[in-house]
Amino acid sequence: MARRTGRRPGNPDTRQAILDAARAAFAERGFDGASIRAVAAAAQVDPALVHHYFGSKDRLFLAAMHAPVDPAELLPRVLAGDRAGLGERLVRTFLGVWDSPAGTAGVALLRSAVSNEWTARLLREFLVTQVLRRILDQLDVDPAELPLRGSLVASQLIGLAVMRHVVRLEPVASAAPETLVAAVGPTVQRYLTGDLAEVFAG
Amino acid sequence: MARRTGRRPGNPDTRQAILDAARAAFAERGFDGASIRAVAAAAQVDPALVHHYFGSKDRLFLAAMHAPVDPAELLPRVLAGDRAGLGERLVRTFLGVWDSPAGTAGVALLRSAVSNEWTARLLREFLVTQVLRRILDQLDVDPAELPLRGSLVASQLIGLAVMRHVVRLEPVASAAPETLVAAVGPTVQRYLTGDLAEVFAG
Repeated sequence: MARRTGRRPGNPDTRQAILDAARAAFAERGFDGASIRAVAAAAQVDPALVHHYFGSKDRLFLAAMHAPVDPAELLPRVLAGDRAGLGERLVRTFLGVWDSPAGTAGVALLRSAVSNEWTARLLREFLVTQVLRRILDQLDVDPAELPLRGSLVASQLIGLAVMRHVVRLEPVASAAPETLVAAVGPTVQRYLTGDLAEVFAG
Repeated sequence: MARRTGRRPGNPDTRQAILDAARAAFAERGFDGASIRAVAAAAQVDPALVHHYFGSKDRLFLAAMHAPVDPAELLPRVLAGDRAGLGERLVRTFLGVWDSPAGTAGVALLRSAVSNEWTARLLREFLVTQVLRRILDQLDVDPAELPLRGSLVASQLIGLAVMRHVVRLEPVASAAPETLVAAVGPTVQRYLTGDLAEVFAG
């Protein structure tokens, strides 16, 4: 039955059907819990077609959630270089994305995540699996501390984006990027690699 | 003409008419630029009636923007005590409000501010005139640095609220308040009173 109503590669709706199914699967089961096979079944296509269109589960996820950038392309430059400069490089790259045309899509994504539980889940999965996991894997800190460190970084960076691009509180809204890198870089560095013994003793 | 269509104290719509006029005035002209006299004129009531209902411009503003708490009541306890503990006390009080029933109204306000430019303006005015100004006035730092210091504090605190209560990223979403006080307090302390020479040299 599924085969008879199955969609074919040439159909322009096929790509959209895959994206709709992927969006539902990632929101319901999370990035790790959703498989390309299950997405293909829900979209009534062959898994090979999902691979053909999107290449990988990461790329399917980015497309399904309308991610304006691919962290896999941006983060290698952030992670290269001395560990002491990691916070500043991460803030600089983050601000660069938000100040670019991709920032408009970022604002739309934030707006949707704040008002819609589905998009909030996708944003959460994006932050954890596409951004934080890739950074945290590189750190020489107690693995048990990584989830909290990562979510503290996310709280500062998302707060910066909300104030600069959504609420537009001055002077953060129009400050030069390097001013904010100097201000917020040490915060992010402390969350990533600083001594948080007092935090984890609590 | 205004007198003949003017609203009277006994009318249950009168209070709402004042609030509607106040919301428009504060969003359009900001807190400092909006006067009780202008709000009264727009609502077609006597200014004395606005004073009678709301007491002060601060309280009129809080009612108009549906602020879940009055920072004037909470901040004296934050500001009392040693300057070195200011960051931790501010984070503790902030988390206390968001973890209380007022937090539900806070989430609603955030949702509205992120999707609606009017509410975003009111939130901006709230942060500056009701929260940040009252804290920054007490600090012994270069007055020229205060606006950026204040908006950095706001970026970290709002980011924390978004991650804990809206996006609900774990473990920040369910961490014990004192864990977050220990983690984020030093960040807020640095933004308020720390040496930011590198930031302001930029």
